[in-house]
Amino acid sequence: MTGGVEERDQSVSLDLLKQKMANFAKERDWDQFHSPRNLLLALVGEVGELSEIFQWKGEVPKGLPDWKEEEKVHLGEELSDVLLYLVRLSDICGIDLGKAALRKVELNAIKYPASKKNFNTSNGTAHTG
Amino acid sequence: MTGGVEERDQSVSLDLLKQKMANFAKERDWDQFHSPRNLLLALVGEVGELSEIFQWKGEVPKGLPDWKEEEKVHLGEELSDVLLYLVRLSDICGIDLGKAALRKVELNAIKYPASKKNFNTSNGTAHTG
Amino acid sequence: MTGGVEERDQSVSLDLLKQKMANFAKERDWDQFHSPRNLLLALVGEVGELSEIFQWKGEVPKGLPDWKEEEKVHLGEELSDVLLYLVRLSDICGIDLGKAALRKVELNAIKYPASKKNFNTSNGTAHTG
Amino acid sequence: MTGGVEERDQSVSLDLLKQKMANFAKERDWDQFHSPRNLLLALVGEVGELSEIFQWKGEVPKGLPDWKEEEKVHLGEELSDVLLYLVRLSDICGIDLGKAALRKVELNAIKYPASKKNFNTSNGTAHTG
Repeated sequence: MTGGVEERDQSVSLDLLKQKMANFAKERDWDQFHSPRNLLLALVGEVGELSEIFQWKGEVPKGLPDWKEEEKVHLGEELSDVLLYLVRLSDICGIDLGKAALRKVELNAIKYPASKKNFNTSNGTAHTG
Repeated sequence: MTGGVEERDQSVSLDLLKQKMANFAKERDWDQFHSPRNLLLALVGEVGELSEIFQWKGEVPKGLPDWKEEEKVHLGEELSDVLLYLVRLSDICGIDLGKAALRKVELNAIKYPASKKNFNTSNGTAHTG
Repeated sequence: MTGGVEERDQSVSLDLLKQKMANFAKERDWDQFHSPRNLLLALVGEVGELSEIFQWKGEVPKGLPDWKEEEKVHLGEELSDVLLYLVRLSDICGIDLGKAALRKVELNAIKYPASKKNFNTSNGTAHTG
Repeated sequence: MTGGVEERDQSVSLDLLKQKMANFAKERDWDQFHSPRNLLLALVGEVGELSEIFQWKGEVPKGLPDWKEEEKVHLGEELSDVLLYLVRLSDICGIDLGKAALRKVELNAIKYPASKKNFNTSNGTAHTG
């Protein structure tokens, strides 16, 4: 589970994280706990922890200019926890997350052409939805 | 917003997705809507859609052997939506998600040594938490 | 499943909603689908729909003064969906939700004495947590 | 913030909880933190804590026959936290949650007639959605 200097120098790929998570589970004999719905609920738990960071802050400007360094580190950890479970859930479900994400960006580009800039904030439609 | 053959041949990186999301928002003049808490709530919305896929199924085996192809495609889309908002939220907050994720895996390896394989399913402690 | 005038005149109790949900499921032969984790994921799905209502709005003032009537009706429906699944999940788990909630309010009063008004918005500690 | 014997003897109403939450916030000068989106994110945080209780357990039978008493107590607390924030969010938004919930049950009864018992577990449609 080493993450050497070389590894950090280049952009982190989803496959690398997938492999690390698979190794991590195997080394601890945790595959037995990593069923799809277990992992999904673990993901929801981490999204809850992420939300707790923002819950009493009111609106927060981009870049989090007023946050302490330790708060940003904590935020990075919670964002990572969500990502790691998402990567693991995808793997366990047999979904190629990177491929699916690229495809989804393309579908979104068709659904929301760049020439049409209108955006409806009143409805609940997610614009990557 | 091109996703060429070459791009798909290799593992998708978080930086690539970050760049695609940034371009996507810029081309549509959507940066104004992409505040941290807006994106966080959008992420929660997508986690809800992901959960809906699994909600009435009872326990689901790894690899989803009984799922129809269209269900798997739908699942890939919802997993992607969560990922894309997570990548965008991290970017807007100024967090290097890939770097943070590698660091978190290392922290987890310290917190849960591979030699100790005990796992407590009774408590609410997430093992990447 | 009647909701008469008399019923609406007084405050709605959790037991009434529990009974209505139990009857609703029984009449449709849905008890078979109402396992704890199925209901929990359904709850998460509804929380996602609730979040979607607020996701692109930025900060929203109390009382929602600028919302259209139809938006408020929609909001009431999503809040209700969360409540109904929460009531049903509690029932299926054998938890008396009303009793538990009163006890939790008392525990919170001990944990956060009214005389101490300090509130830390930086940490993630929920004050009913 | 007393919860006397008499109060516990009868079914707990949503209005009672609303009033208790309003008093609780007022006594601590917390109204300033209880904006709609702050409360919504706090709710998401509590749903995360609720999910953590179930995350590694695999499927769980109704009534939780194998759970320890302390686990059930913990579950009751997390269910309560979700309820209390839901009640408070509704109040701050000016929504009568009890009235909305009764109306939603009636709408569901029209949408899903008791005579039609078919239930599609493949799609993501929530049956109170």
